[in-house]
Order: sequence, then structure tokens, then C-alpha cells
Amino acid sequence: MVNVGILGATGMVGQRFIELLADHPKFEITALTASKRSAGKKYEDAVTWHLESGIPEAVQDTVVVDTDPAEVKDVEIVFSALPADTAAIVEPKFAAAGMKVASNASAMRMEPDVPLVIPEVNPEHLDLIETQQKNRGWDGFIVTNPNCSTIALVMTLKPLYDQYDIKKVYVSTMQAVSGAGYNGVPSMAILDNIVPFIGSEEEKMESETLELLGDFDGESVTPAGFSLSASCNRVPVIDGHTESVFIEMGEEFEVDDVKKSFSEFRGLPQKLGLHYAPESPVIVREEENRPQPRMDRNAGHGMAVSVGRIRRDAVFPENLKYTLVGHNTIRGAAGASILNAELINEIM
Amino acid sequence: MVNVGILGATGMVGQRFIELLADHPKFEITALTASKRSAGKKYEDAVTWHLESGIPEAVQDTVVVDTDPAEVKDVEIVFSALPADTAAIVEPKFAAAGMKVASNASAMRMEPDVPLVIPEVNPEHLDLIETQQKNRGWDGFIVTNPNCSTIALVMTLKPLYDQYDIKKVYVSTMQAVSGAGYNGVPSMAILDNIVPFIGSEEEKMESETLELLGDFDGESVTPAGFSLSASCNRVPVIDGHTESVFIEMGEEFEVDDVKKSFSEFRGLPQKLGLHYAPESPVIVREEENRPQPRMDRNAGHGMAVSVGRIRRDAVFPENLKYTLVGHNTIRGAAGASILNAELINEIM
Amino acid sequence: MVNVGILGATGMVGQRFIELLADHPKFEITALTASKRSAGKKYEDAVTWHLESGIPEAVQDTVVVDTDPAEVKDVEIVFSALPADTAAIVEPKFAAAGMKVASNASAMRMEPDVPLVIPEVNPEHLDLIETQQKNRGWDGFIVTNPNCSTIALVMTLKPLYDQYDIKKVYVSTMQAVSGAGYNGVPSMAILDNIVPFIGSEEEKMESETLELLGDFDGESVTPAGFSLSASCNRVPVIDGHTESVFIEMGEEFEVDDVKKSFSEFRGLPQKLGLHYAPESPVIVREEENRPQPRMDRNAGHGMAVSVGRIRRDAVFPENLKYTLVGHNTIRGAAGASILNAELINEIM
Amino acid sequence: MVNVGILGATGMVGQRFIELLADHPKFEITALTASKRSAGKKYEDAVTWHLESGIPEAVQDTVVVDTDPAEVKDVEIVFSALPADTAAIVEPKFAAAGMKVASNASAMRMEPDVPLVIPEVNPEHLDLIETQQKNRGWDGFIVTNPNCSTIALVMTLKPLYDQYDIKKVYVSTMQAVSGAGYNGVPSMAILDNIVPFIGSEEEKMESETLELLGDFDGESVTPAGFSLSASCNRVPVIDGHTESVFIEMGEEFEVDDVKKSFSEFRGLPQKLGLHYAPESPVIVREEENRPQPRMDRNAGHGMAVSVGRIRRDAVFPENLKYTLVGHNTIRGAAGASILNAELINEIM
Repeated sequence: MVNVGILGATGMVGQRFIELLADHPKFEITALTASKRSAGKKYEDAVTWHLESGIPEAVQDTVVVDTDPAEVKDVEIVFSALPADTAAIVEPKFAAAGMKVASNASAMRMEPDVPLVIPEVNPEHLDLIETQQKNRGWDGFIVTNPNCSTIALVMTLKPLYDQYDIKKVYVSTMQAVSGAGYNGVPSMAILDNIVPFIGSEEEKMESETLELLGDFDGESVTPAGFSLSASCNRVPVIDGHTESVFIEMGEEFEVDDVKKSFSEFRGLPQKLGLHYAPESPVIVREEENRPQPRMDRNAGHGMAVSVGRIRRDAVFPENLKYTLVGHNTIRGAAGASILNAELINEIM
Repeated sequence: MVNVGILGATGMVGQRFIELLADHPKFEITALTASKRSAGKKYEDAVTWHLESGIPEAVQDTVVVDTDPAEVKDVEIVFSALPADTAAIVEPKFAAAGMKVASNASAMRMEPDVPLVIPEVNPEHLDLIETQQKNRGWDGFIVTNPNCSTIALVMTLKPLYDQYDIKKVYVSTMQAVSGAGYNGVPSMAILDNIVPFIGSEEEKMESETLELLGDFDGESVTPAGFSLSASCNRVPVIDGHTESVFIEMGEEFEVDDVKKSFSEFRGLPQKLGLHYAPESPVIVREEENRPQPRMDRNAGHGMAVSVGRIRRDAVFPENLKYTLVGHNTIRGAAGASILNAELINEIM
Repeated sequence: MVNVGILGATGMVGQRFIELLADHPKFEITALTASKRSAGKKYEDAVTWHLESGIPEAVQDTVVVDTDPAEVKDVEIVFSALPADTAAIVEPKFAAAGMKVASNASAMRMEPDVPLVIPEVNPEHLDLIETQQKNRGWDGFIVTNPNCSTIALVMTLKPLYDQYDIKKVYVSTMQAVSGAGYNGVPSMAILDNIVPFIGSEEEKMESETLELLGDFDGESVTPAGFSLSASCNRVPVIDGHTESVFIEMGEEFEVDDVKKSFSEFRGLPQKLGLHYAPESPVIVREEENRPQPRMDRNAGHGMAVSVGRIRRDAVFPENLKYTLVGHNTIRGAAGASILNAELINEIM
Repeated sequence: MVNVGILGATGMVGQRFIELLADHPKFEITALTASKRSAGKKYEDAVTWHLESGIPEAVQDTVVVDTDPAEVKDVEIVFSALPADTAAIVEPKFAAAGMKVASNASAMRMEPDVPLVIPEVNPEHLDLIETQQKNRGWDGFIVTNPNCSTIALVMTLKPLYDQYDIKKVYVSTMQAVSGAGYNGVPSMAILDNIVPFIGSEEEKMESETLELLGDFDGESVTPAGFSLSASCNRVPVIDGHTESVFIEMGEEFEVDDVKKSFSEFRGLPQKLGLHYAPESPVIVREEENRPQPRMDRNAGHGMAVSVGRIRRDAVFPENLKYTLVGHNTIRGAAGASILNAELINEIM
């Protein structure tokens, strides 16, 4: 068993890390960090737990420590659920101290020597680690996963991009409130309502997508050669982001072939049989009114993306349209970092 | 005062007609029709009233009649809140019987000799009435308004299209449950959920928009010379449709000019001072997180469309992006038909 | 394996029966019935499936038959998810044809010779079956479970009633929309709203509770010697009924003893280790803001009732107050009938 | 016109004060206070406005001052929307400085020389002001209104208590999220959920009710001679508290007489024709499924309480049961303080 720690263990994403790692066959939680205020408390006293599953017994009595590498002993991998500004300062310290940091924070994602990885999409970008360690003189390293709404989208773009030229992508999202953290969206803001704005979200989708699908020449990543424009909306849904996608394809396609590309898509995690690898990363729904967040967010234990309404655009026949749903705090956050760590643990 | 009737007066849209017409300065409700089952009952006994405002006193005791022109006496204008299949059969009978039919139903909208009109957008299409009466030998006529999600969108496209070349439009909607009628969306379907499909809605938006902005040569309408692709979603919101719009513009634009075009837009209803004409048909919101359906649906007594997040596309600089909100059962249904009737009453 | 059938297999409760029975260790689904309209179709074509779990493979191709004992061959137990009026006519026919009917319908519950049973509460009432068969000349029989809101309440009253005199109970419920069936509560009725009325619900709670806790002398049941008054409300929650309970106790009590009575409560299903018997039928929550339906409805796989805010009434110190949550379509419907059948299968 | 100020003008209740006072015929807003952080800013820059109506023009440019009597000049009445802890310190300073404080805060409500008043219920308690001024040596004074859930309840208890002996009251509430302030209830806490706990709410209802209906002998108030027990729940509703009420009556009653008592109830505000006095303070709904918060919260411009399901308890025939709805931030907060001030302005 590999000893792992969770940085920022009391927040929404921190709780998902704990839930998903509690019975993990290869990782054992041996350290939990939080802000100074919580340090020294037992985890069950430090946290206001918000998941239906309850606090796993194994961590109830774990004493929370300050988010400082000096406090985190004998740990090989740390998962970061830190807010971006803290992550920018703290994650490099953990990497410098020799730990492998699998981060869900946005702080380091666009650094040229920090791999931004979805294991099914661009595992080869992990080779950047070598450059990173050399550049920065670290024994450890940082690996990041994308933003929640980006991950779900890119998992569907990958099998398309492998087979077809893509010219332009337009995406309008309908994002669950859990994406903003437990206190992020007041009920007064969202009951019987839509909020058509999420700070920095469109920018993340528009840049991260091209990075993830970009070419890696062994030293750096050249962004993918198409462009994507996003409009991001918050909706009164607990978990599960829904996205309406419009794609201007660069070449001929048949809808049935597209469905087949989605259904048959498998990546390295599936080949390696990683613990949290969903059998089918992309699940095609044929019902006219699916996918739906409440019905489909837990597909593949929350690690698969469901796609439906796959159709040729009736107006622009060279275009493809579809709708997708992905679980934003599992596949889109904690589960993404864990799958990155599983892959690293397996191949490095 | 002009005597008016309401066809299908007990449904959701029928109730909105009654609410909006109850204190109208020019129209007086003298007839209410419903299915045979309700005929002969007092309105208050025939209806399950669902609006906060309560049943207006003036119609509580009105005896409901069958939806048959022979039962509707001394009425000049009838408003149709009928379902499409019934409307297809019944509306022509009322027109043949000499009545002016202002219809919210979709049945006759795309008939080449039936005007599909938003008074601020294409009032000149009303000249089709003459052709219609000649073609069909009717003393009366049928005028229609578009689908709820189309109206809100086209009210924002009109001032743009007047000033700029438009190449392509992509729109993803987040539509309120009231659009499906009182029993249309079960709570089991939509609580904590999104339904990414609304039957025939995308087709209506894609065809009606071009018709409304089309050229009328005095005899027929040539659809506008751009194309629009829609993805329609149902969200847990009571009233008010929200739409994310992406436009590929055919020429240079400045965002401030676009905002000015929206804000300064006025149509014939505003010039004529029609009763339900909103002072500003399109209201520009500068807050980063507006418009929102709960906050903005009642702008202009539910007759104005609110637009926000008006921005140059960061990825495709030749593109314009914005979000709009319009009240689907007022501006998008009953209010639309009434404004059509007010215009006809004023100019014909 | 015992062959079982499901009457009314396409509705909300019918679907729960299928989900819960799909991998049952002792029961095998061999017959599914529905209305004539569905008879002859494969189940997957006859049903609009609404549960997140998807249609179990084993029944996808099962051909649905008419709800008629002649169509249901070689089946020992049938579970009834029929509406009350149909159940009143059909269930006796299945019993007459020799089948054991475990019914969730209300039709026969208050018949003096039909046992109304919660296995943890009054398993001895099953002895009424003998009387029922004698009275009616049936080879089979009917056993019923109570209404969803009654079950959750009575599971908490039972351990109290075993140890204390109870004088009066007041209960105000906040019931999930799934209790009314998939189309039962329109979203227009319940978004941003409460409906303070559920047809016949208060009457059921007020009569069934006393029957369940009543004395059985081997021939008939004498209702329990206290009274209960209910007010029932519908709330915008998918699954899980919440109930605020006020009890005038007939004797001294300590809150800690009450908690202990709840926590330590075990019934016959626990002793027998029945498959769907929750380890603890009543779970005590100590957090000040629990139980909550979204967090606690799935406790004990949806078969346990969660109780919290257990406190001495600050105003009436002889009174006990608490709040409970139970899953209305699992413990309160399909799961209740299945546990009845498991008990019958074990002991008869 | 009387110059008035609002203490804590940027919060939820502060915004309601501004909305309700914007066009008031007798009061003119001349001062707005907030925390030091906002002092010196224009109101429109200091506030994040959350009401649909928009910021009234008259106050947009008003410069916000610190909540300190020295900063509030030439003001006769101040309305307090302060949090309880701040109110406890600050309100006495304003009273000492000669201002009339109409407070919605709970801090001073239960002080024996501070009147806790609903104008329709116990206007005579205002005579306590004299005692208060004498006791404390103030030129000004403090008058308070009760907690939101108490007000709605007591408005219905008053006409009953005037005519009948009441023995015991049990009430279970379903309270809107706006009662907790804009950020009070995270959407993660309440979507598809109920929270069966609101801090200090039950205690307030249980004590304030008896104070409001208590006897005033000119010097002090003797609490009413019955008792009330409350269970308070938070529900996913924006505005409008719903309450299920069970009353053990101390004498015979007829349901029709009770309805008449409710309908015919009028208080001093109605007699004096105060601006915000609803024509009927208590509105009786005869529909079996009313009152509902979304449909009835705005009755009487949010100042009336709607009552329905008025019935004799089927189980305890000496008991009365009903359900009520009142608007928690209008009648239950800002509107309550304003009506108190209107009454004081008229009679003192």
C-alpha cells in the first residue's frame, strides 16, 4: 500500500477524496491537512461532513495537521483539494519536499512544465514531469487535472479528435451547485433560477481543452489546432454538469460512426485496469431525453461521461450536436486526481 | 371596447390571457371557450386556476361555451390558447365565421399566407392577411405569434440584424417548466435535474426565426439569409426562458454599439403606445451575472427581454456572445398574441 | 428460489419492486403484469423507466401479461403495486387462485381479516391469514403493508410503545413527490412551493397506526389505546418523507432512555436475518440538524428509519419531540412488501 | 413627511425596508447605515441588491454612513435590520440619542420594558414606552416586532383567543430560505432536502407568542395563559413560511364560527387606515390544497396571512387544525416594523 495524504481535507472536494480513497486497494490515507484552525483536531471534529455516505471509520480519529510538508511524514502521494491561491504557494513546497502532488487546483495547470492530464486522453503528457523536475530541481512533482466542466467535455472530444478534423466547438454548460463548494451558491441565488455566469470558468474551458488535446513532442505541448467557445451557467442541480455541444466538423462524418467512436473509446486506464477506470469512459444513451444529471451522473461510479442526443445538425449538416453529463466532483475533481495518481503509480 | 373571446380558456396560457385582458383598456372579454366537458359551467367552476393573482371577478361567472364559432356571438377578436392539433381544425372555422384570430398555437404559423408576427419585429407581415382572405375566402383571418423561445431570441436579433450582417447563430436554451403547460413536466422529472430535450422546439426556433426576420415583398416572405441552430433544455425554473447565444457576425462590430442597438431599439408598438408595449423591448443588464429568470422575467410587466453578458467572443473575435431572459407565458405566449391584436386593432 | 410476480410492474412502485428483487437471493421474478395496453410487450418496451439504476437485464425481455391470475403461471408470491381501486378487484382473484399476495395497495388494509403488517412491529398479525382463508375460502391470501408515511412513523413508535404509555401523538409530515407516482405532482405545483394537502393521507396515518400497534388475540385486532392526529404536506423533495412528531407521554421518561430504545430496537426480521432487514431498523442521529431526507433516506439501503432532534418538550416537559426520515418508496412501499414476503416465506 | 433611517440597510431585510419605504406617503428615507466597510460609499455601490424590483432611484446615490447615532442627523425614526448581537449594543444608543427605533432584531424583544408589538394584536403594549423611557432615561425608545414565524401564527391566534379559551398549541413550521438572510442557507443544504432545525427559532416562537397575547396592566405584561410547542423546519422555498397548527381548544367551537372569526378580524391598523395595513389581516382560503407559499405569500401586498384547511380534528374533536402562510420578509420582518412605526406615528 502507498501512503497518501489529502491537502485541504475538510472541504467539499477533500471529502470526496476521502470517500473515494477509503477502501482503495493501493492507496492508504495516512495524512490529512487543513488550515491552522483545524490542525490538531480529530478529523471528525474538524469537518462538517456533507456526503450521504458518512465519514469513513478509518479517518474519523485521524489528527488533522497544518498544510505544511514538514507535518506530512512518510507520504508518497498527496492529493490537493486546496483553493487556487493557496495551492500556488503550497503545492511547490510539497513537490520540493519529494512528494508526488496530484492536484485538482487550477493554480499550476497552465504552467508549461506541469502536466495537465486526463489519463484516457493524454497520458503521454506525464513525460513533462522529467522536464519539471529538472527545471525546478524538485525530487517530487506536480500533476494536475483539468477543471470539472473541461474534463467531461474533453473525454467526448478525444475519440472524435482521434478520427475527425474538428474546426470549431461551441459549448453551453449547465453546471451543478456543488462545483462552487458547499457554501458557494446560496439557495437564494439559485432556487427557481439560473445564474448565467461562473467566474473564470469559460476561460478555463477554452484554454485547458486545447492543452489536453495538444501535441506533445517530448518537451512541450502545442495546443490543439481548433478553437472552443464556452458559455457557462449555474443551475439548481446538486451534482452533475450538463453541456450542450455544437461542433463544426472539418470533414465528413456519419452519426453512427460517431456513436461507435464514443462507445468503443478506451484509454490507458482501461487497458491497465486501474481501480477507478470506468469500463466505458463514454456511455452513449439512445433515449431522446438523456443524458440527465440526476439519472446519469453516477454512471461508471461517477467516472464515466454520458452522451446523448448525438445528431447531425439539421441546419448546418456539416456540424455535429450532442449533450453530455459528467459528475463534477467525482470524474470532474477528486476522481480525476486519483486516476492520475493510479496511472503514475502504475507506470512510473 | 372591442369584444374578445378566449379559445381554450382553462389551460395555463388561457389563464394568462384572462389575467392580462382583465383590465384591458380596449378589449373586453365576452366569451370563454373550452372542451365540451366544461361547456355550460361557470368559469370559476370549470377552471383549476394556477396563477397567483386569482381569477378576475369579471369572468368568474362567465359561462364557458364549446370551442365552436356558432357558440361565440358578437365577438370581433378571439385569442387562441388551443393545443396545436385542435387549433389546426378550429381556428380556420373562426376565421371563416368572420372573426379575427390572434393565435398562440403553432398549427398555422408556417402557412405561407398566415402572418407570423412580433409587432416590434415584422409588423409589415400583417399585409399577408389580405392574401390569406383572398386565398381562403374568409371574412376573418388568422394571425400567429412565434414559439416562446423564438420570440425572446428574435427580439434581440432584430436590432442586430438591422445594423449588421449575421452569418450563423447557435443558441442553447434553458426553458422554464410553465412552457409545457401545468401538467407538462412532472416534478419527478425535473427536481435536481435537467431534461435536454423539448419536442419540436429546436425545429420551431430554427424555422420561425428566419421567417420573422425574412423579407416580405407584399405577397410572400423570403426567409432571412442566415441560419440558426438550437439545443433546447428544460430546467427547474417556474417561468422565464434563459438562452445562451453565440453569433458569427458577418462584419465588424463594437460591443458598445451592440449594447446601444439593444437599448435604443423601439418598434411600432412603442411608437403607437400600445397598451402592452414595453417601454424598452430589450433591456441591457450590465451586471456580470444577469439576466436571471427569477430576477428579470417580469421586466416590462413580462413584455421586455433582458440581455446581459454581451461580449466579444474571446476565442472567435468576430463573434458576439450574450445571454437573454424572457417571460415565456407573457411575452412568449399570451402577451404576444395580445400585442398582435392591439396592433391589428390600431392599424387595420 | 421462489417464483414471484409483480402486479402493476410499470409504475413507480412496480419499478422499485423490480430493482429490489433483481438480485434477491430467494425470490426470482418470473411474471410481470400491467394494463391490457402493455400486455404482450417486452418489459423494456412497455415501461418508461425512471430509476437511476437502469432496467435490470433479467427482466428486459420478460413479456408483460395482463393483470389476471390466469395469465400468471407457476408463481407463488405476487407483489401488488396496483392502484387502490384496481387492487380491490384484482388482489382477491389472485388470492382465490392460490397465490400469496404481498400488497402495497391501500384497498384491503383495513379489512378485519387482512393482516396489515410491518415485520419489525407486528409479525404476529400474520396469524390472521388463517382466519382470512377460512372466511373467504381462499387457498392463497393477502397481506398488506401500511402507507409510506405510516410505516416510518410506526417504526419509531413501536419501541416507545413497548416501554412507555403513550397518550397522544401529533405529527406533521413533509412528504416527497415520489409518493404520488411519477406524474402525481406537476413541477408547476411544487417548485418554490409547499402543498399542504395529500388526499386520504391523514386518514390513513390516523387509522393504520393504531391497527399496527393494536392487540391481536388470535382472531382480531383491537386498535392501540392512544390517538394520533396528522397534518400532511407535500414538499419539493424527490424521495424521503420527513415527519415532525410531538408525543404526550403517559409516564415519566428520560431522553437518553428513549434514544436507547430506538437504537437497540430489533424485530423478528433482524433475528431471522431476512435479506432486506436493516441491521438497525431505527437509527439515532445526534447532529442538531439531522435527519434530512437527501442525506438519510438511503440509510440501511433505504430500509431503516432515521430519527433525530430527540428532545424533551421545553414547554410541555411530559412530552417528547423528535423528527424522522424514511424512504417512502423503499421502506415505505416496495421494500415493505418484500420484507413481508420474506417473513412469510421464512416462517410459514 | 417624517425623516427615517435604516440601520443595516445592505442586508436582505434592509433591502426590503428600502423597497417598502421607497414610495411611502408619510416616511422619507434620509439615512442609510451599514458596517464601517461600506460607510462613505453610495448605496448602489455598497449593496449587492437581491430583490426583483431593483434599487429605488431615490436611494441609489444616498451615501451610506456608519451605524452610529452621531452619523444619523435629523432623523425621527430608525428601522433596525441589524443582526441581534449588533442590535443589542447599537439600538439603545439610538434610543438614547432621542430616536424612535422600530426594530426587527430579536435582541431587545423580551426585555420587560420594551414593547413587542403586532399592531393588529396588541397595540396597547406600546404604553410600555413610557416605562421604558423612565427606566432608562431615554428621549427616544425601542419598539420591536416578533420573529417572522411568530407573527404569522399570532395573527391567526389573536381572533381565536379573543373568542375562545385555548389550552395548548402545537405548530410545525416549513420556513423559507430568505428567513436566514441571503447567504444563510447554501443551495447544497436545501436542494431536494429539508433541514429540520433553525437555531433559536422554536424558543422564540414559544416565548414571543405568549408575550404578544399576554395581559398588559399598564406597567408590565403577563404572558397568555396557554402554552405552545414548536418544531421548525427549513424547506426549499424562497419566500413565505408555512405552518401546520394543532390547537387543543378549551371550549366548544364550530368550524364556521372560526372561519368567520378569521375573516372578520380587523385591528387598529385597519381602523386607522394605516398605509401598510392589509384590508383583511387574515384571509380564509376554502380550497382543499391552500394556502401555499408561492401562491399566497403576496396576499395583501405581503402583509396578510392566509389560512386554510381549517377543520375539526377528526381524531380529537375538541381540537382545531389549520395551515397558514405568511410572507416572512414582508409581514414577518420589514413590513412588521414599518406598520409598528406607522401606528406610533399616528397615535403618539
